[in-house]
Amino acid sequence: MKPDDARTVYEGKLIDVTVERWGDHEREIVEHPGAVAVVAVDGEDHVWLVRQLREATRRELLELPAGTAEPGEEPLETAQRELREECGLRGGTWRELTAFWTTPGFCREYMHVFVAEGVEPGAADPEADEALEVVRWPVADVGRRLGEIEDAKSLAGLLLFLSERCAS
Amino acid sequence: MKPDDARTVYEGKLIDVTVERWGDHEREIVEHPGAVAVVAVDGEDHVWLVRQLREATRRELLELPAGTAEPGEEPLETAQRELREECGLRGGTWRELTAFWTTPGFCREYMHVFVAEGVEPGAADPEADEALEVVRWPVADVGRRLGEIEDAKSLAGLLLFLSERCAS
Repeated sequence: MKPDDARTVYEGKLIDVTVERWGDHEREIVEHPGAVAVVAVDGEDHVWLVRQLREATRRELLELPAGTAEPGEEPLETAQRELREECGLRGGTWRELTAFWTTPGFCREYMHVFVAEGVEPGAADPEADEALEVVRWPVADVGRRLGEIEDAKSLAGLLLFLSERCAS
Repeated sequence: MKPDDARTVYEGKLIDVTVERWGDHEREIVEHPGAVAVVAVDGEDHVWLVRQLREATRRELLELPAGTAEPGEEPLETAQRELREECGLRGGTWRELTAFWTTPGFCREYMHVFVAEGVEPGAADPEADEALEVVRWPVADVGRRLGEIEDAKSLAGLLLFLSERCAS
């Protein structure tokens, strides 16, 4: 399954834009290297979140730790690197919780979401353009605080984590 | 809270791309008119989903009915129009379930998710470039079929709907 024709109409730093022709219609598609997010739970059963300015939204959002794949990285490597950089968390037992397209109508970003349980605090190492505040929530409080989350990947990841824990 | 400078680097049909300067760093931002998704439940307690080719993903995905705001439309209007066009569903009792940024790291798309309960079937009227298959799932089956959903908004919307129903 592939387009009849494709042309790059914008080449940027993080994203490119491609226009694809499929039969009688065209689609504008944002190219993206892929991303990860992590539901990280420490030994005191707290989940770690990050609050940061999201320039596109004009304000700070509270989200799961997350980031974009570097060239050649496997999703689990990206996730472990990002969790260390953003939160200083190391170790723990990792598994993939889910994976999804973030906005399949116009963007090729595919995201893997991991659960890391029993992670251990250490020194964080955020990137130069990231100013992050780390926030810890008791897992028992997450369900009634979901109204504070305005980010799709974080809602999906936290809800799925909670629903699996309830079922087990 | 706003950038020191912004310039449009790509003007497309659905999306534009802006580069914003915030202090010492730049952000590439995909401009998007905003969107909606609907958890639509009929009188037999079935939720309605749509399966369609998503060109960006190179295959068909199963998703909540959803769509992009037309100029001047309120989110609820967009949602009711899209549900009628894609599924032929009318009527029902509507409420907003949640709203979120779909990919706040690089895109200005904000999405409202509605629940419409007691919707009634009628004739669908998809757009010319949409080939949709409508799928109905009993609400009672949704939880164990979430692995078939690979779309962030649909996972978040369905999980939140289920969690609220369980709690009530």
